[in-house]
Amino acid sequence: MSKTLSQLGEFGLIDRLKKLLPQEGGCLLGIGDDTAVLPYTKDKYQLLTTDMLAQDVHFTRRMDARAIGHKALAVNISDIAAMGGVPTFAVVSIGLPKTTPVRFVEDVYKGMTALAGQFNVSIVGGDTIKSDKIVINVALLGEVKKKHLVTRAGAKPKDWIFVTGPLGGSLKSGRHLNFIPCVEQARFLVKNYKPSAMMDISDGLAGDLNHILSAAKVGAQLIEDAIPRHKGTTLNQAMTDGEDFELLFTIPMAKAMKLMDWQADHKAFYFYPIGEITADAKQRIYAKGFTHF
Amino acid sequence: MSKTLSQLGEFGLIDRLKKLLPQEGGCLLGIGDDTAVLPYTKDKYQLLTTDMLAQDVHFTRRMDARAIGHKALAVNISDIAAMGGVPTFAVVSIGLPKTTPVRFVEDVYKGMTALAGQFNVSIVGGDTIKSDKIVINVALLGEVKKKHLVTRAGAKPKDWIFVTGPLGGSLKSGRHLNFIPCVEQARFLVKNYKPSAMMDISDGLAGDLNHILSAAKVGAQLIEDAIPRHKGTTLNQAMTDGEDFELLFTIPMAKAMKLMDWQADHKAFYFYPIGEITADAKQRIYAKGFTHF
Repeated sequence: MSKTLSQLGEFGLIDRLKKLLPQEGGCLLGIGDDTAVLPYTKDKYQLLTTDMLAQDVHFTRRMDARAIGHKALAVNISDIAAMGGVPTFAVVSIGLPKTTPVRFVEDVYKGMTALAGQFNVSIVGGDTIKSDKIVINVALLGEVKKKHLVTRAGAKPKDWIFVTGPLGGSLKSGRHLNFIPCVEQARFLVKNYKPSAMMDISDGLAGDLNHILSAAKVGAQLIEDAIPRHKGTTLNQAMTDGEDFELLFTIPMAKAMKLMDWQADHKAFYFYPIGEITADAKQRIYAKGFTHF
Repeated sequence: MSKTLSQLGEFGLIDRLKKLLPQEGGCLLGIGDDTAVLPYTKDKYQLLTTDMLAQDVHFTRRMDARAIGHKALAVNISDIAAMGGVPTFAVVSIGLPKTTPVRFVEDVYKGMTALAGQFNVSIVGGDTIKSDKIVINVALLGEVKKKHLVTRAGAKPKDWIFVTGPLGGSLKSGRHLNFIPCVEQARFLVKNYKPSAMMDISDGLAGDLNHILSAAKVGAQLIEDAIPRHKGTTLNQAMTDGEDFELLFTIPMAKAMKLMDWQADHKAFYFYPIGEITADAKQRIYAKGFTHF
């Protein structure tokens, strides 16, 4: 008997599928980072990412249709941001039951186009099909100067670890539906204090930090009290709740201290230092009071 | 009360959604052709397209999983071919019930990667999510030399109308699951006998030819006996069955006659002339014996 997906788990499945996909044809960085990195111009890479949202998994029909559309695009923009890039062109596929009110679909698109306008994204095509439940897929292109590209790999011992904002309780609070992707923060960082590694927090701080640690074979020491949490959120929730879509990044210590100096005097952004990278890959994440792992 | 989708219809919905999407940001050709056309290099455009397939709409669980994967990519490659381009990079999203056997998913990917290899497409990323029924979305990039780009617009009176192969009965015969997209035929054409308009036949010859006619405000006179049909297929089936994925294109008469000369001596491809474009936009499609419209 073949295993089922629930026995294998999502990351187990991704590992199996990766083996079926030979890396070839000029792609510079493929499955396993926030976006694929493709050849583009002399100075720039092109970025490509895709995310699918399904009714009753990522949203319900009772939620605001505009917020659903907003989220479908926002999660993709967040992936482009995590590479240091800017989003450019999107295509949108949407599967819909026949009985869906046209207004609902229009509102999904209105939510998407409002966010697209804010980030200069053009929605240039798509597909509409019939399906039993609503499903929305966005594929998004972006671009980044070669010198600004940041991947998940590259963290080094003594690098400081930062996040862009408070964590935890995103799903319960509804923040996952209306968050603004951290493009501006990422652009500021890659131009001024280029991170050694970066990703967006979609599966929870602990799990996502583990991706950065595995990629560089390093560990991490977190400062419990420094992890910014949303009101009413426990440390464990801040560590493990998904869909925060804040950026998680590491910066070499000297540069990190300059960033701290800068933000003592400026209010444009605030980046939260939460710990440091350690050489001991076996240590993985150590945070006093955090018991989940 | 808001209308439902079944009251509005697919093309009605697309028209409504198009109004919500301002064309901007440098996209050269967006919704309404086989792919979006994006700025790329000095000599080339980039092409971007996406298609979604849903279980029990486009395929069933009893069908060969490899064929499902093959089709999910093939329909996108066909769109790139219809613009005269070559496919390059793809991202794949797949929604799966928890109970799906891992082997089924692996077979979907094997079908996809086999076709990808054949057309030098790299699958560079994707998303896997939980859903009630299987849903597969592929977004595909391509590129085309500017001088080779063909759109749906551009047909002129007296241009000959061609198709790349026999039509009809694709769904019944299973051809929709294992067709090979006409990239080679399209590349041969754009390099040697550049069509004035081209698209792939996904909704049936009659409906798809109407898109070419509307775009150029022209009509068409078809030669009933010249329309190539699959065995056991009626003229009306050849005119209206969907998912043939042959190319439909128009070529100025002088060039069309040269193409006919060429193919009298060569066996590499065969292109079927089926009629000509007329000046009378009101005539639309006239074919003796065809009664559907």
